[in-house]
Amino acid sequence: MATKKKATPTPAKSSSSADGATKPRRRATKDPKDQVTLDAIAHTAEGIHQAILHHSRPELKMPVRALSNVSYDPEKGYFEIGKDKKIRTLSVSTVKTFAQTLKMMSLSRELIKNDDFATKRDAYYQSKNWGDARFDEQPESDTVMDDIEALFADLGVSREQLRYVPDQHGGAVAGELVVVDRDIETGEPIEIDCTRFGSGAYAVPSWVEHLKFKTKARFVLCIETQGMFQRLQSHKYWQKAGCILVSMGGVPTRSCRRFVRLLSEQCKLPVYAFTDCDPYGFANIYRTLKVGSGNAAHINQFFCVPNVRYLGLTPQDIVDFDLGRATHPLADVDVKRAFDALKNDPFFQSQKPWKQAIDLLMKMQKRAEQQALSLHGLNFVIDEYLPKKLKNPASFLP
Amino acid sequence: MATKKKATPTPAKSSSSADGATKPRRRATKDPKDQVTLDAIAHTAEGIHQAILHHSRPELKMPVRALSNVSYDPEKGYFEIGKDKKIRTLSVSTVKTFAQTLKMMSLSRELIKNDDFATKRDAYYQSKNWGDARFDEQPESDTVMDDIEALFADLGVSREQLRYVPDQHGGAVAGELVVVDRDIETGEPIEIDCTRFGSGAYAVPSWVEHLKFKTKARFVLCIETQGMFQRLQSHKYWQKAGCILVSMGGVPTRSCRRFVRLLSEQCKLPVYAFTDCDPYGFANIYRTLKVGSGNAAHINQFFCVPNVRYLGLTPQDIVDFDLGRATHPLADVDVKRAFDALKNDPFFQSQKPWKQAIDLLMKMQKRAEQQALSLHGLNFVIDEYLPKKLKNPASFLP
Repeated sequence: MATKKKATPTPAKSSSSADGATKPRRRATKDPKDQVTLDAIAHTAEGIHQAILHHSRPELKMPVRALSNVSYDPEKGYFEIGKDKKIRTLSVSTVKTFAQTLKMMSLSRELIKNDDFATKRDAYYQSKNWGDARFDEQPESDTVMDDIEALFADLGVSREQLRYVPDQHGGAVAGELVVVDRDIETGEPIEIDCTRFGSGAYAVPSWVEHLKFKTKARFVLCIETQGMFQRLQSHKYWQKAGCILVSMGGVPTRSCRRFVRLLSEQCKLPVYAFTDCDPYGFANIYRTLKVGSGNAAHINQFFCVPNVRYLGLTPQDIVDFDLGRATHPLADVDVKRAFDALKNDPFFQSQKPWKQAIDLLMKMQKRAEQQALSLHGLNFVIDEYLPKKLKNPASFLP
Repeated sequence: MATKKKATPTPAKSSSSADGATKPRRRATKDPKDQVTLDAIAHTAEGIHQAILHHSRPELKMPVRALSNVSYDPEKGYFEIGKDKKIRTLSVSTVKTFAQTLKMMSLSRELIKNDDFATKRDAYYQSKNWGDARFDEQPESDTVMDDIEALFADLGVSREQLRYVPDQHGGAVAGELVVVDRDIETGEPIEIDCTRFGSGAYAVPSWVEHLKFKTKARFVLCIETQGMFQRLQSHKYWQKAGCILVSMGGVPTRSCRRFVRLLSEQCKLPVYAFTDCDPYGFANIYRTLKVGSGNAAHINQFFCVPNVRYLGLTPQDIVDFDLGRATHPLADVDVKRAFDALKNDPFFQSQKPWKQAIDLLMKMQKRAEQQALSLHGLNFVIDEYLPKKLKNPASFLP
């Protein structure tokens, strides 16, 4: 019966905070990253405390989050936030936001201590217990969350390290990879063998900072569509090619990008992207995966994969693999997006091979989906296209 | 290096069809469902063949896919397609569509024989090799696909059994469940233990007909948001409650619904839904999971979960669990949706407890998200809300 309870020990009922936000759980292994985060919170709080003791007005400095405060250095590999800061000084008009920022930092500290996490929504509802510092609408709490994220990004700490996690899945993974997670209660390591999924896959959690990896793969292949991922997974392409398959499902989410970044860094693996041959595939999916996005520049240091290279589909592939019959004319929105990329995007502007590729696309006035390869047989992608492309990774677009 | 290939046997290069749609792979175990599908295709083709031999005009009869041709019988538990048929007779004006329908059936037969599958897009691109029978635009091929789906649904065969799979993930799963898949090449069974995922989960494939299950769980809990799923999964709620957690991520996809249906039927498990307390949670997410949707009535026999019951959040929960401070006013779109459900939806009309619940919601003029439970502590949902609700499943909304 559903109503019966198993004889599992129930968590302690005592509450660790006045707000009762989280109840202490048995603590797993301590992560050194957590200490960095706790130190950053303590450092920030200490600055405010000292200012008050010295009778000066406490302030918080956060980077200005705007495209005008962004730069791109191909060496670093991602859109970087500039030096412009906005300063929030405690005053009559800022007192509520100031208090909310501190409460949010305090909640973060509690989450780390209890090895728990919260979504933006959770934090919003929690705030209803903060008396006059409560948020009336969620956009208010989102803004404070973004400010905290920017403030701590300057100290090298991401929002996920503060234990605020997105309400999003992180994509699906299959192939030559063992993910090492841990039991949140006992700290016991849990190994997830991504070769043992049949037609299914490993669903990446919202929050990946604690994951470790074991792999003998030679590269990571990030795929735009679920349909193509399902084909490569079901036919065990990862075994043939010795690789790890990642299904992004369109523009990759934060946790998907972070997962690929950690995997690539920890295991020193090259990453290749495989998307549709259209401006959305280039400028939205690939560009976001590689260098991040303009309006979230303060977090790109954590959430992009600077070493990713673009395997295909390229405009040249449409010619080389005789896909003309399977193309579609560019729509107005495609043309606008391509034009924007060439005119306004520092990434594409700094990469000549990309300018040439987009020029060719505009000249052809045609786009092709990755599944257009089915024209030559459903498994042409496995038997011909990918092996041929992978013979020459140096030719991939940067 | 990425260009080196492992010493894995490459698949045979010979092509099994004139179009070269699929190449034969080593065949895994034969599934008896496949023989049913092959027989249905043969039966349909034979009817056409006989008509031609007898010098009469061959025809295909498919159910009319429209709300006007739908009925709801609470005993059966899903929106059912009516008896209205449209007849496609071979004539000068229908010859192309007629040929396309037959080619699509032929491709399906080939897919089954090679234990392969195709998305709608794959089928569209394949058709470029069909000479004059090729599709010019994808909406054309989608329409023929929908017709075939309706035609075969009458014979008890789903689109997935025809091996046409959606380009969608199927949700995420964690908890007291072993999924049994198989290696597509060797047929060897693969067991996936959903208790061994740490903070991650099992990503359900696009296509689930071949899956088997082993479980000692007492129920399946289908959850609207990734945030709530992540909380219950990370804190091993499934162990405390002896259950299987399914993350629907909004309105459940075809393969998510089919997965839950197969799991519930094979393992005789009750299914409970846990969504936001708003008309979208009731009328879009829950209603679709339980009885299917109106404009796809021909497939509801496969894709709904008639035994699912609604655990919460209910409007009464807002009162009982003191969530008033965490509610939002109903928006115009909520009011419209609630009004539509009461006025036009045969499901809600036939279920008095639902009418009362929606009436209460309209009277309160408030909605609540499932994460509103965070108001009383992040893990209140685990420690208080779910245990309390699960003491009385008989009180769940039908």
